[in-house]
Amino acid sequence: MSLVRTRPTARPFLAATRAFAAGADTPRAFLERCLEAVAALEPEIGAFVTMDAASARAAADASAARWAAGRPLSPIDGMPLGIKDIIETADMPTGMGSPLFEGWRSERDAAAVKALREAGGVVLGKTVTTEFAAVVPGATRNPWDTSRTPGGSSSGSAAAVAAGMVSAALGTQVVGSTIRPASYCGCFGFKPSVGGLNRGGSHDYLSQSCTGVLAGTLADTWQVAREVARRAGGDPGFAGLIGPDALPSPVRPPRLALLETPGWAEAGAEAKRALEGAVARLAAEGVEIRTRGSDSRIDELEEALAQAVALTRRINAWESRWPLNTYRDRDPAKLSRVMLDRLVEAEAMTQQDYAEDIAERARIRALHAALRPSFDAFVTLSAPDCAPVGLQSTGDPSFAVPASLLGTPAVSLPVLSAGGLPLGLQLVGYADADAELFAHAAWAAGTLGGGDPA
Amino acid sequence: MSLVRTRPTARPFLAATRAFAAGADTPRAFLERCLEAVAALEPEIGAFVTMDAASARAAADASAARWAAGRPLSPIDGMPLGIKDIIETADMPTGMGSPLFEGWRSERDAAAVKALREAGGVVLGKTVTTEFAAVVPGATRNPWDTSRTPGGSSSGSAAAVAAGMVSAALGTQVVGSTIRPASYCGCFGFKPSVGGLNRGGSHDYLSQSCTGVLAGTLADTWQVAREVARRAGGDPGFAGLIGPDALPSPVRPPRLALLETPGWAEAGAEAKRALEGAVARLAAEGVEIRTRGSDSRIDELEEALAQAVALTRRINAWESRWPLNTYRDRDPAKLSRVMLDRLVEAEAMTQQDYAEDIAERARIRALHAALRPSFDAFVTLSAPDCAPVGLQSTGDPSFAVPASLLGTPAVSLPVLSAGGLPLGLQLVGYADADAELFAHAAWAAGTLGGGDPA
Repeated sequence: MSLVRTRPTARPFLAATRAFAAGADTPRAFLERCLEAVAALEPEIGAFVTMDAASARAAADASAARWAAGRPLSPIDGMPLGIKDIIETADMPTGMGSPLFEGWRSERDAAAVKALREAGGVVLGKTVTTEFAAVVPGATRNPWDTSRTPGGSSSGSAAAVAAGMVSAALGTQVVGSTIRPASYCGCFGFKPSVGGLNRGGSHDYLSQSCTGVLAGTLADTWQVAREVARRAGGDPGFAGLIGPDALPSPVRPPRLALLETPGWAEAGAEAKRALEGAVARLAAEGVEIRTRGSDSRIDELEEALAQAVALTRRINAWESRWPLNTYRDRDPAKLSRVMLDRLVEAEAMTQQDYAEDIAERARIRALHAALRPSFDAFVTLSAPDCAPVGLQSTGDPSFAVPASLLGTPAVSLPVLSAGGLPLGLQLVGYADADAELFAHAAWAAGTLGGGDPA
Repeated sequence: MSLVRTRPTARPFLAATRAFAAGADTPRAFLERCLEAVAALEPEIGAFVTMDAASARAAADASAARWAAGRPLSPIDGMPLGIKDIIETADMPTGMGSPLFEGWRSERDAAAVKALREAGGVVLGKTVTTEFAAVVPGATRNPWDTSRTPGGSSSGSAAAVAAGMVSAALGTQVVGSTIRPASYCGCFGFKPSVGGLNRGGSHDYLSQSCTGVLAGTLADTWQVAREVARRAGGDPGFAGLIGPDALPSPVRPPRLALLETPGWAEAGAEAKRALEGAVARLAAEGVEIRTRGSDSRIDELEEALAQAVALTRRINAWESRWPLNTYRDRDPAKLSRVMLDRLVEAEAMTQQDYAEDIAERARIRALHAALRPSFDAFVTLSAPDCAPVGLQSTGDPSFAVPASLLGTPAVSLPVLSAGGLPLGLQLVGYADADAELFAHAAWAAGTLGGGDPA
């Protein structure tokens, strides 16, 4: 086991701003502490594709002046941020983890990035993504154990947050790309309801894709998401993430459904025990817990979700036909075998196949939505185990894919561990009820011990 | 009145392919006839931003070889096409009608363009769009009278089709950008149901936006749309335009609702008489026609649609906040006053304002959808009158905006005239029932005289 020199520690931001307001600390000093973590850890972790410390320092100085004047642009004014390299930035290339886009510049910020800058966010750099946010890994290593994957596809975002190089980072998820790396790296991860955060300028066009947030605290996670949504809205046609201006107050969920998900058979024994222990603690606080064994409607949902990975794969394949077919035209040697295979799968599909797949997805979504009067949220693992050894795979997404297929919000809380390494507890809510999910997540995180996994 | 040298004549393609199959004509010869029209008319009309005759000739030759071998890729193999310059092409710049994007190359085809090439389509060039497919005109003139606007924003697409420089062209519509120029230029225009044709690589991100088709015949219009949909599908999450592999057979609609739309007060007397005459001819064929005066549900819909222009403007403004804010960052001098004003309007809106606007749109959509058991389609004008004199404005979209707001398919048939110039009859159908609308449109076009407006 190859451990990094210092135990990874996230860098909460909102809590620090009290000192900004009091003049005891500044965003520039905060950023310098991030840069110290970068200097110490980045050579081993490799979370960033591009970094611009000079621009970040200038932005932090401007933020410091605003805090000193008592006029921060938002609660996250001065927050050091990482941006997944599938998302456009005006001042840095957007490489998408693909040699086809190495050094490519769009010369504009994505909608979410522009919103974060309007809120005073300090973009430190672009974080490593798998190729086109799919499965072929970048070079990032897990900050808890550099022989292990950080998860993907938001690999660099999770690793940079967990190692305290930034306070928060944007990720994306269409299968398990936010929840899984959050679990493996021991930070908070949030995948919103479909449409929740404007994806303009993010190169994930898929119907299940969401821009999400990774951060060191639940309050930072919510705040970043809300600052994006209030300025950039959701995807066109969606109202976008709505809720209070700060983390919703904790609310004990009266009833939770425990989901096995398609991942249960793959879950490690210690991981299962960790989940069961956490659920027992919630039950001890008065939460009624139902399972597929005690409620046939949960069993019916579990049965439907058994096909979530295969159904998601087919939906993603059809929706990826373009632009992959144009990339193959340009240079097939610059596409991975996995992407070329996905394109072959897409080209073997018909429009009718896809129509049936999204109809089936709609049926499963309706099954889930019908449970709303009965269960406040769903609880499960974020991943089958701690991060696996090896950098060739970003791990198993089967615990994360249900919320992707359902289009519902999901939060990974870094409150479990297995093998002395982080493991996330996942809460899944209902579409467009993200704030309610955060209220339950705030309660659960408080009850279970606040997110220190080791 | 400044008339071009020859009366504009569209260039139907599907009818010509019988001669390809028989060896009496070839796609290359067909293209050369298009290029003759280009040589004769383009200097006065200005439909194209970019043209690549050499590549088109090579593509036409390849198509000719396929027809000669009895193996065309599709019924539109060899069809000369124009692509609205808001839609990406691998081999030509995509300028978006904006100095910010002059000469910009994405190095990939948009989803619809790639699909058309897979079907054997011959892309002749990029057609003029207004700035970002909004309102500030390009340099295109109406082929019927060069002192008049061709309409917009799909200005060059409509003009090129009407003048026989291509057989069909891709356009887009979020307010009236396909139906209105089709009306002014005297060609067929089709705006599909929302989500009907994959917008990947088309720079209109708005929730009402659709990629559409302009062509010289209804059969060509449908065929182009279907060839796109079967290969590229709809927008992610939508099944996309579904229906028969060739133009649906004509079906007389038992009941039509005559819509005044917000445009009625602006419509010219001759235009109104032309519509009334057409409707009387349909009624004489046994179609029951109801109006707001004879059916309170139509009146309720008309009342709701009275705000369609303002509601659409607000929705578009919020959804345009990005990327306009990033374009302003780059160089505000390269954005028109109209775009800068739209951005100011967007920045004065809140997420809640937008949420209310799309909720109101959903209410109006439900009002319309509830009429499906009672009316087979809706009939109205495509524009208040023939194309107005002047090139500073692309004209009044108020007849076209209802279908945009409703997210429903609409077809403009070039079967009316006013002042000796073309005027479209518009049929509006129900969301995701585009094939049914075409069946009614085929019947109406046959009954009313097939599309020769003068």
